[in-house]
Amino acid sequence: MLKLYFAPDTCALATHIVLEEVGTSYSTVRVDFARNEQRSPEYLKINAKGRVPALVTDGGILTETPAMMVFVAQSRGRPDLALMDDPFAFAQVQAFNAYLCSSVHINHAHRMRGARWVDASDGQSIAAMQRRVPISVGANYELIEHDLLKGPWVMGERYTICDPYLFTVAQWLEGDGVDPKSIPRVIEHRRRVGERAATRRAIAQERS
Amino acid sequence: MLKLYFAPDTCALATHIVLEEVGTSYSTVRVDFARNEQRSPEYLKINAKGRVPALVTDGGILTETPAMMVFVAQSRGRPDLALMDDPFAFAQVQAFNAYLCSSVHINHAHRMRGARWVDASDGQSIAAMQRRVPISVGANYELIEHDLLKGPWVMGERYTICDPYLFTVAQWLEGDGVDPKSIPRVIEHRRRVGERAATRRAIAQERS
Repeated sequence: MLKLYFAPDTCALATHIVLEEVGTSYSTVRVDFARNEQRSPEYLKINAKGRVPALVTDGGILTETPAMMVFVAQSRGRPDLALMDDPFAFAQVQAFNAYLCSSVHINHAHRMRGARWVDASDGQSIAAMQRRVPISVGANYELIEHDLLKGPWVMGERYTICDPYLFTVAQWLEGDGVDPKSIPRVIEHRRRVGERAATRRAIAQERS
Repeated sequence: MLKLYFAPDTCALATHIVLEEVGTSYSTVRVDFARNEQRSPEYLKINAKGRVPALVTDGGILTETPAMMVFVAQSRGRPDLALMDDPFAFAQVQAFNAYLCSSVHINHAHRMRGARWVDASDGQSIAAMQRRVPISVGANYELIEHDLLKGPWVMGERYTICDPYLFTVAQWLEGDGVDPKSIPRVIEHRRRVGERAATRRAIAQERS
């Protein structure tokens, strides 16, 4: 059985929603960031990166959201959720998810995790990075709004793993200083994914 | 036929090597960063992100190295290069590549592309980010050296798309201030990938 290590309001939610979408049996373990559990010796044995999410499987432990979502879809008989039967369509799915993980999520992280990229004592540079977040994340969402999001779902008519992932990172955009009025299609997409039963169940579990 | 837009000394080399490994026919177009061609109106029609690489295929244009490499392998009859027949092994391949694109490459980029994350006029913060690169990239390579690189190839006995990707980003590690003596297995892996005929051909083409 699968076991998902998560923390609320993190990108772990994307894989959590996919677990609900495929209808597999799984359990969850909450990692308490307030107590810095993600850096505890016990958790570092699960994920040496000291972050969430991590997914314990019968074959071993997986990390990295784009990889975990494809694994859940492929191993639970739902490769269609990643359009895996068509190499080009699958590559588009992967390209979108790579953009979320390496651009949107990273730019966002400069608001809360600046000490990854400058010395933790350098408050001036950390503040400078925070001031840039609305611009960098805003530019990411402009591209998604106008070029990447096909509609109604990210890949067009078919719901894929891109949708819960965009939904998840889009939870953070107001906090990042991005004006939701400037990206109405992203906001409408977020509303649409939020209405799905699988999404509601995953969120309810994280909050329980 | 495939067409790869690249610039020398960028992560485009990873896909270039995979194109050589699978032995497909393709052409290349060099994007001149010195003339800022990646931001030209012509190139932005190819890749609205204004970056390399981009891969023109019969079905459309792809970006993002992890997605492009899987596409080349899968569409050219070499899904074994991504261990795609085994969902868990494939997920490990994807997790490794996600780590390179969202952690190693991004941390590296703080040395040359600091203006993505602070105002371009803020030389003090840009310098602060540059000083952090040996630590952040160094920590990434420590993890690769001790936890992720199975040896002799990244995934163990089988050469996969992870290998040219690690080889490519590992070109930058001395410039990032990482001590090669501290990561002998990574350095030995780099040497091993560099000796492959496909790697040599791709590099020769980029330099020609």
